[in-house]
This record gives sequence, structure tokens and C-alpha cells, in this order.
Amino acid sequence: MEHAVFPGGARIRPKLTLAVASACGEDDPGLTDGVAAAIELLHCASLVHDDLPCFDAAETRRGQPSVHCAFGERLAVLAGDALIVTAFEVLGAAARRHPGRLPVLMRTVTQGVGMPLGIVAGQAWECEPQLSLVDYQRAKTGALFAAATMAGAQAAGADGAPWRALGERLGQAYQVADDIRDVMLDASVLGKPGGQDLALGRPSAAGELGLEGALAEFQRLVQATILTVPVCPGASKFSQLIRQEAQRLVPQQLAARVAAVA
Amino acid sequence: MEHAVFPGGARIRPKLTLAVASACGEDDPGLTDGVAAAIELLHCASLVHDDLPCFDAAETRRGQPSVHCAFGERLAVLAGDALIVTAFEVLGAAARRHPGRLPVLMRTVTQGVGMPLGIVAGQAWECEPQLSLVDYQRAKTGALFAAATMAGAQAAGADGAPWRALGERLGQAYQVADDIRDVMLDASVLGKPGGQDLALGRPSAAGELGLEGALAEFQRLVQATILTVPVCPGASKFSQLIRQEAQRLVPQQLAARVAAVA
Repeated sequence: MEHAVFPGGARIRPKLTLAVASACGEDDPGLTDGVAAAIELLHCASLVHDDLPCFDAAETRRGQPSVHCAFGERLAVLAGDALIVTAFEVLGAAARRHPGRLPVLMRTVTQGVGMPLGIVAGQAWECEPQLSLVDYQRAKTGALFAAATMAGAQAAGADGAPWRALGERLGQAYQVADDIRDVMLDASVLGKPGGQDLALGRPSAAGELGLEGALAEFQRLVQATILTVPVCPGASKFSQLIRQEAQRLVPQQLAARVAAVA
Repeated sequence: MEHAVFPGGARIRPKLTLAVASACGEDDPGLTDGVAAAIELLHCASLVHDDLPCFDAAETRRGQPSVHCAFGERLAVLAGDALIVTAFEVLGAAARRHPGRLPVLMRTVTQGVGMPLGIVAGQAWECEPQLSLVDYQRAKTGALFAAATMAGAQAAGADGAPWRALGERLGQAYQVADDIRDVMLDASVLGKPGGQDLALGRPSAAGELGLEGALAEFQRLVQATILTVPVCPGASKFSQLIRQEAQRLVPQQLAARVAAVA
């Protein structure tokens, strides 16, 4: 379980949760931390199971052997299961001071990862002969991003609904960037094998729109995300965070290389 | 997910939850139902993952093809994951009237299934070269039985602690009975392949104590379970439930056959 969680990736989902909670006038930082940790643990669990031999059979993740390569397939299945359970253990423990917020937080978090519209549904689309790229990416990536932003608001006792669109669009942008990076970058930068979408016949924005089309779509989604930041005291700080993240995902140099390839 | 949950087995864990909640003066039947359903969903999830090719490679379960045989390994991994998530979705939704009970309920339920002492830990012991049969069975079976009884009390707003020992001992009794049944009964009665403990080199009370020793241990555990029923208005009804369940697990006829074999 430790191997699956450390070292971390960008930790973008829990960062979003913390940022939204702060923008909504956070009054219980312990609860925000628990919600953010739960969301990251669920993300890590999904990576462990995605990497299994029956799915991507990925040998590396975050620059180290994937969990099943390091510890065997059986412990990888169990570590993923235990990470899901631990996420809810952490969430429950963090809500002792405001248990009244738990039912809506549990709904938000479970909808982000479970059936019929969360990560598990997205992964299940990979088992179907045909799929819609939008539905697939919304479930596989967008749903947990939306849960991360909505749960940040709910952890602060605020309404989560105004933050859904932001999370969904940022999730879409993130997925398109991931597709571009998969084509353009090699394993030493990615910390996992590159070229996997093509190799595994997986749906990909780069495959469907071409690299240049995917880059234009990414830039459109980043702008759309910034437009959906709800009116709040932290709105401009939030827009800045999104621009920084966009720059980290697809640096200008990479965008220039995409243009040159196209 | 439906295939993993229906048709059900004995549903003994949720029945325990309902019975304890009733004995504790249940005041929110919707919450009790949600807790009981969550526990059964987690049990079903564990069966789906236990049956996977990397563990037991079981082809049948509850008289029908196991989930991975019916739908493939990938959907079996995902169905198990989704059932875990659904369990917490159901639990959260059921607690709207009494959210103050959620933190302790979530701790109880997660400890019953997660690390370091729940079902996942028990299953992980199977990956170790050596293990203690008592620790293994306590984690693999006893922990969720204890969670079922404790959570029944907590769903009714009562203290769960007095109900822990009852759940643990009944879980042990159930596991010993399962070991006896695995040796003595065939697939048509079990709804799953028989003789698996021996075939898979799994720790088993029947293997460790012999069949007659396992039967004596089962009868000792049933008596010990009855002695741990807390003082409450429903105590005698509860003792009767345990005796009925013991008779269902190891009917007199089966006990007589064990004595004859030994």
C-alpha cells in the first residue's frame, strides 16, 4: 500500500480539494485534509488495479516497478482493495467534528469512483467493443476531478454543485494532456511506459483528433475551465492555479514540438 | 455486480446486524438496513476477488459460474471494486437521519474488511509462507462477523464493544464449519467446488485438528458464542438464532458422518 501511494504523482486531485475548500471559507482543516487524502487514496487504488496484467500489464508507475511487478498480482489486487477501504476509514475519522457533512461527502466521493459514472465505469468501458471517447474520459478521469472539487466545497460546509463543471472540464483537459504526453514523451519523463494508448488500442484524444487537434482541444478546455470558476474571494488565485497546472502538463516546449510534428 | 450479489448465500452477516440492532432497541430501521446491506456487499466483493484466477481460480460460487468465469477477469476485478464503493455509498445514504453515528460505523466496517486486521489482511496471509491459523481465520472471517454485530449495535445508537466477542467467536465457528463442509460435502451441496482447502494447500481447521477435532472445536465455539451474548431483552432469542445457525452449518447428520469417518 505504501508502494502504491509513495512517491506520489502530481497530487493534483487533493490539491484541488484543498484549494476549493479554502476558496469556500474552510472551517475544519482536518476534515478537508481527510477528504483530500481519501480522494488521493482512491486514485492510487485505481492505478494499482489499472496496472494489473489483465488490464494494462504496466511494469512501471511513477518511476518504479508497478505494485504487481514488485509484490505479485495477488498482493496488488489486495492492496488496491485495501486502499479503497482505507480511503473511507480516513474520511470517517476526519469527520468527527462535522459528521453532518458525511452523507453528502460520501455520495460525492463514491459517485466519483463507483458505478455507474465513476472511475470503475470508465475502466469498464475498456472492456466494451465500442465506446464514446467523451463518456469514457468523463468517467475514467472527469468524475474523480469533479468529486475532488465538489468535496472540497462540501468539506467546508458549502454547496458542491457550483464546483462540478470546473472539476469535469479540468479532468477532461488533464486526460487530453495525458494522451498527448503518452505520444510525445518517453518513459523517463512519464515514469511509466509511453505509447501505451496506441499499443493497447485504447481510446485517445491524440488518436481521434490527431496531435494538433488534441493540443487545440486541450487549450480550449483550459480556457473553459477558467471560465467556470465560481464567483468567490479566491477566484483569481484559482485561475492562476489552473494556468500553472496547464503549463506543467503541456509546457510551451512540448506544445511547440507538437506543432512541429504536425 | 448483480451476479455477485444474487442469488445470495445464507446472508448470515446482515442477519446478525439486524438481530443485534433489534436487541439494542433499534430506532432507525433504515440505517440498520443500510449498515446490513453494506456489510453484505463487502462480503460479496471479497468473494468475487477471492475467486479470481490469481487466488482460488474458482469456477463456481453459490451454484453458478463465478463472476470472472461469467464476465471475464477484468470485469470481476472492477465488480469487486465497485461493490466495495457501493457499500459505502449505501451506508452514507442510510445515515441521513443520524449522521452522528457514521464516524464510528465507518471505523467498525472498515476495520472489518481493511488492513491490518480485516478480510484483506486475512486474504494476504494466504500469500505468506507461514501463518497462524487463528490469526488467519480471525482476519478472514472473524473480523467481518465482529463488524456485523458491533455495527448492528452502533446503528441503534448503542455501544458496539460488548458485541465484539460474540461476532468474533461466531466467525471462528463459521470458519471451522466451512472447513468441515469443504472436506465432507460435494459441490452440489456447497454451490462451489469441494476439497479446495486441501487442493490449494490452504490452512484449515480440518487439516490442522483432524475432522473429529474440528467438529469438537466447532461445538466448543458455538457454546462459547452463546455465553458471550450480552445481557439484553433479546438475549434468549439471540441464543436461539445461534443454535439454529449452528444446526444449519453442521446438521446432526453431517456431525454423525464426521464421527463415523473418524
